[in-house]
This record gives sequence, structure tokens and C-alpha cells, in this order.
Amino acid sequence: MNTMNQTILNAFNFRYACKQFDPKKSVSKEDFDTILEAAHLSPSSFGFEPWKIIVLQDAETKKKLYSIAWGAQNSLKGASHFVIILARKKFDTIYNSNYITHIMKDIQHMPNNVASDRREKFKRFQQVDFNLLESERAAFDWASKQTYIVLANMLTAAALLGIDSCPIEGFNRESVDRFLADEGLMDEKHFGVSVMAGFGYRGEAPHREKTRQPLSDVVIWK
Amino acid sequence: MNTMNQTILNAFNFRYACKQFDPKKSVSKEDFDTILEAAHLSPSSFGFEPWKIIVLQDAETKKKLYSIAWGAQNSLKGASHFVIILARKKFDTIYNSNYITHIMKDIQHMPNNVASDRREKFKRFQQVDFNLLESERAAFDWASKQTYIVLANMLTAAALLGIDSCPIEGFNRESVDRFLADEGLMDEKHFGVSVMAGFGYRGEAPHREKTRQPLSDVVIWK
Repeated sequence: MNTMNQTILNAFNFRYACKQFDPKKSVSKEDFDTILEAAHLSPSSFGFEPWKIIVLQDAETKKKLYSIAWGAQNSLKGASHFVIILARKKFDTIYNSNYITHIMKDIQHMPNNVASDRREKFKRFQQVDFNLLESERAAFDWASKQTYIVLANMLTAAALLGIDSCPIEGFNRESVDRFLADEGLMDEKHFGVSVMAGFGYRGEAPHREKTRQPLSDVVIWK
Repeated sequence: MNTMNQTILNAFNFRYACKQFDPKKSVSKEDFDTILEAAHLSPSSFGFEPWKIIVLQDAETKKKLYSIAWGAQNSLKGASHFVIILARKKFDTIYNSNYITHIMKDIQHMPNNVASDRREKFKRFQQVDFNLLESERAAFDWASKQTYIVLANMLTAAALLGIDSCPIEGFNRESVDRFLADEGLMDEKHFGVSVMAGFGYRGEAPHREKTRQPLSDVVIWK
């Protein structure tokens, strides 16, 4: 087996949900920049990047988050970097929003006629194909799905660099939304919390072997 | 900058949504096995792996999918490997389901008391923290989010191997669900279609430079 295949398998085997980070070890600026760039270059549906990433370093703010995010406590204590990924709400992701116009015009630099066709396609996708406009939640969860690509790419970049991580859904969404709004970190009209992650270096041996269903239970060839 | 940082950045820059695959080029078995293993080792909430992966190779079946999946047509024509990722429905992911019991007992090998604590925690997570049981859709979209980690890891593993890919949301969910059920590829009680992807080698130059919002619009440091 050649080197890159093995490098990939090693990284995915190295990664586990780190429960105890070594608080004395920091991820270097160069490495964290690489992890952020993996997030930044992540694909998203129609290229709309419906997300924002908070890198939380302030001790006081972390302390307040602690009690409403049970799954984040180990990362808040020991991880070198703590990240909260936000997803955009329907207000921003609906086909005729200012945000979608901004991305097509200012970021993707589409000529007007191309943008107009694209918006029509996106409208049909939202209204018909994925039925995303039926509720605030359906639209938000769609944007949130895109953020799980960001999450995965950050975890994988970290693992390739020998950096541990912990993906985190263990928090009360409503409380965290309110907290982030109160702290001035998020405008609830545009964003909601999607998922979190800690990055650093393990201060433990992994608790147990990685367990997975047999590949034959997961993959169907036809 | 050391080699691994550069390797990661190169891979994320190499990846783009390939619109035209070279139908004469195939991904080797070794490489596709690595891509599948990246999927297989993907993390999921509570480790419940609420997904299944269909590798679709049969020409007749592909032809039938063609008309209900506009975003998949280029991949169905030219990609070496075509993948449909399914997500599990509430029937399987609700805290007291047979599926959850199966994973905790047969895969994660948890002792009864550990599994029982875990199930209580998962129940509270579903009922309170993420309010996932409010609808079939909310529960399904949560499982679907986990499949976007699988998707991302397959795309990244491919990119690291110099293999092109195209992530695909361009299809009618209802039609594809019915199609997969009719083909005997999916039991609608347990699964729904989440997302698709093609893998192969580009038969085109990428249409345009990768566009992204400036990192400063996407990342908040606090």
C-alpha cells in the first residue's frame, strides 16, 4: 500500500472523541491556521457557505458556557482551541435573501443573468426538491448539515497533523443560542448554534478500541 | 511550512465540484477502499452511525435515477464510482429503538448498566437539548447531518489521493426515496436518501477559481 493511502487510514484511525485534553499543550498557530483553512475551503450546497465559526478563547466566556454545554466541559477545560460553529437561518438562506444575493454577486462574481438563473434553480431546489421552506427548522437544519462538512474537515485536518479533537453536540441549543446572543457573539435573526469542537492534545489513553459496524452492514453494492 | 500542512492545503484546494468526469478513467480498488474506510471510520453523534452507503454501479439502475436527480447527471455519466448516502429515520434513531440497542450491545459492547445510562443521556439529548423528537423530519435531518461528516470525509480522502469528486444535493428527495424503495435498495421504514456523490477523474479544467468569503467574514475570535 502506498504512502498516502496509509497516511489517510492512519489519520482516521488516530482520530477519536478526545475526552481529556492536556491543558499544558497548545496547537501551534501554523497548525490551527491549517485547520481553519480546511474549514474555509469546505464545500457547501450551491457554494453559499451558510456558516460562521467562533474561536472561543476568553476564559470568562468559556466559564459561562460551561454549565449549558455538558458535552463541551472537557474541551472547555483542557483543549487548546475551542470552536463553535453557527449555521445561518432561513432569513439568510431563503433564495431571495440579501445574503444569497451578496454571495452570488460579491463573492462568486456572477453576472446578473447567471445569478438570476442560479437563483431560480436554488428556489426550485428549496421549494420542491428538498422542501426546505416548510419550516424555520427544516431550513436551519439544511444549513446545519453544511456545517457538519466544516466540522468533519476540521477534525480530519487536525488528525492528519497529529492533533486531537472532540466533536460536540452535548449542549442545550436554546440556552446556547440565548447565551451567544447575550454575549454579542451572534445575531439570532441570522444565526443559530449548530455544533462545537475542541482541538488540542490528548492527556489520556483512548478509553477503548474504535467500534464500528462491519463494513458489510454499512455498504450496499448494486 | 512543513510537508503535512502543505499536503492538507493542496488537497482542499484541489477539490472542487467536478462537473465533467473522464468516463475512461477508473478509481482503483485500493483507492476506493481507502475512501470507503474514511467513511466507515467517520464519527457520529453517540457513535450510532445512523447511515448506509449505496455504491451504484448497475447501468440500468443508474439510468432510472438519471431523470429524478438533475444534479447527479454528470456523475452518473462519467464518474468511476457513484455513491448514495442514506440516513436512518426516527424509527431507528429514537432512544428506545432496536437499532440503538443493537449498536450499544453488539457493536459498542457496552455492559447493560453502561448502556442503560447512555440511553438515558441520549433520551435527554433527543427530547430536551436538540428537541429531535418533535417531528419525523427533525429526527431524520439530525441523522442526515451525521451523513455529511461521511460525505466530507469521502471527498477529503479522495482529494488527498488526487481523485475528483462531486457532492450532490440536486435531486428530488421524495422521488429518489420511492425509486430506492422500488428497486429494493432501501426500506423506507428505516431509511431516507440524504446526499449523493460521484468519484473519478476530471475530464475538464475547473470552470473558475474557487470563491470563498474572506476568512475575516467567517471567523470570529473572542
